[in-house]
Amino acid sequence: MSWKHVTLGQRVRFGTGLASQNLADEVERLGAQRVMLIAEETAPDVTSKIQVAIRCTDVAPHVPVENAARAREQAADADLLVSVGGGSTTGLAKAVALTSGLPIIAVPTTYAGSEATNVWGLTEAASKTTGSDDRVLPVTVIYDAALTASLPDELAIASGCNALAHCVDSMWAPRADPINQALAVEGIRALGSGLRKISSLEGREQTLYGAYLAAVAFASAGSGLHHKICHVLGGAYNLPHAQTHTAILPYVLAFNAPAAPQAARITEALGTSLISLYDEIGASHVLHGVPDVREAARLILPSVPPSNPRQVTEDDLTALLAAASAGENPSEWSRA
Amino acid sequence: MSWKHVTLGQRVRFGTGLASQNLADEVERLGAQRVMLIAEETAPDVTSKIQVAIRCTDVAPHVPVENAARAREQAADADLLVSVGGGSTTGLAKAVALTSGLPIIAVPTTYAGSEATNVWGLTEAASKTTGSDDRVLPVTVIYDAALTASLPDELAIASGCNALAHCVDSMWAPRADPINQALAVEGIRALGSGLRKISSLEGREQTLYGAYLAAVAFASAGSGLHHKICHVLGGAYNLPHAQTHTAILPYVLAFNAPAAPQAARITEALGTSLISLYDEIGASHVLHGVPDVREAARLILPSVPPSNPRQVTEDDLTALLAAASAGENPSEWSRA
Repeated sequence: MSWKHVTLGQRVRFGTGLASQNLADEVERLGAQRVMLIAEETAPDVTSKIQVAIRCTDVAPHVPVENAARAREQAADADLLVSVGGGSTTGLAKAVALTSGLPIIAVPTTYAGSEATNVWGLTEAASKTTGSDDRVLPVTVIYDAALTASLPDELAIASGCNALAHCVDSMWAPRADPINQALAVEGIRALGSGLRKISSLEGREQTLYGAYLAAVAFASAGSGLHHKICHVLGGAYNLPHAQTHTAILPYVLAFNAPAAPQAARITEALGTSLISLYDEIGASHVLHGVPDVREAARLILPSVPPSNPRQVTEDDLTALLAAASAGENPSEWSRA
Repeated sequence: MSWKHVTLGQRVRFGTGLASQNLADEVERLGAQRVMLIAEETAPDVTSKIQVAIRCTDVAPHVPVENAARAREQAADADLLVSVGGGSTTGLAKAVALTSGLPIIAVPTTYAGSEATNVWGLTEAASKTTGSDDRVLPVTVIYDAALTASLPDELAIASGCNALAHCVDSMWAPRADPINQALAVEGIRALGSGLRKISSLEGREQTLYGAYLAAVAFASAGSGLHHKICHVLGGAYNLPHAQTHTAILPYVLAFNAPAAPQAARITEALGTSLISLYDEIGASHVLHGVPDVREAARLILPSVPPSNPRQVTEDDLTALLAAASAGENPSEWSRA
């Protein structure tokens, strides 16, 4: 055993229906007087027990630099940022924290997971810059499954499968270590159980809990084969994020399984094979929108992490993308 | 699900035979110029690749305030503390950090686990004060199983069982939450596997890794029934620490199991019952040195945590201590 693990210090409060109270407690704990709320107009209101001094609703996907600049100006005399929303909202709060050093309390409403990482991103002229800085890590995360109630089941399933991909890829990512893997396995267990009953509040709770662990594991372990494939596909063909991740995951798992002892832990934590879970919850493993799988494979190959448990050739990637595009049974494909 | 979890931020580097190099890397990363080394004369030397400006060997059990005062004076112009040793050594470094704010790099040589917690302790006139403060949490821990080689197997087994008690008690301690429990389960898995081959370096590695997880889980979850019992017994009858923990643990587990769904996870992670593991590794569940079990039960009762999964009466405690003193088979006793 030889590894290095960095644990990010953070407070988490988890409780259904408790977001307003937990937020008030944390604002008081931090002694904040000038709260800046970052939330889209459609975000749930969790501010009934706190005073909001400044409001920013200027949220856009991938955090455009113009939005970040405006939010930073607004934050000039704030002493705390409270973000309520999905990944784009958390991302805007992080952009403000990056230059101001203001603490963030994040109240997530999806399974995106950005709230548990120190990674920030900014977009300028369609080009995205990302980095990691401990100043952007929210000091406290407040999870409340009731806030995800407005997310339709279908979207919740795709978002939950995206979180599952964070866990699975953490098992063999470049900075994978026994601790990331243990957290990922617990995340897989929770996500498997939550996704099976996503229409219930209990299912939403389990999925939210699993998505948090997924983010912690993934932030520490880094991107493995799955995320490299999806990142290149997303950039080259402008594919929908969660659906693409959902489609690719079973093929990456099937490809790596013969060379990865970790695969057995994934199946064990799910209580079944990934593809049986997909069938049960109605998730689709059909990849749409890749016009030329050979070309795509060529684009992906340079990004394949050396840490991947199985060696990957251009032909392997071509076959994988072809099987996914045809929606073949992943386990039968991998044995072929 | 409703819970609060605080994750303490910390770096961990784990590698057998790598302590000197990993220490040098971390000292450089922190840019330290005036390192104060805290280590007993008998501690292994891991300083071959760093410069030591100040040396303190003044380590004593339970950190007497006089020793802390002397070490604090020595540290006046240090900019980093490096501790190499067991719990008492780490404890002295923490005492210095508490008043000076100096960062600590901890290099543990036992399975005590203090290096992964923000808890400090000081002893004055036989009275121990403890507290928690994030300033005493080592910024980096460097684990090297080769440094535990001088620990005899018998002591390693008792120290490892003590770590196992941290994990087991974390499952139902006052601040137990799903994350503590997941870390504790992974710790139990590693300790069970490591203790079975404690004579080998691989066994020492697994046990060291498990002891780290045990400390992380326990620091977050707090003391459960097991630790309350051992704390009172230790104080009242001056019993040996690790051996007492080792003896009591199977009886607490047997007592709680019927009311604790968590017990199945413990058995599953061990791959067998705790008592079979004890037999396998030659750990003793015979409690020595409690002259009056009824009196001891009376002393313990007020400390029983309300979070314990099963209600505990004075008669229960008396029966538990009597069974442990007689060395009865814990599972047969609990069914009686």
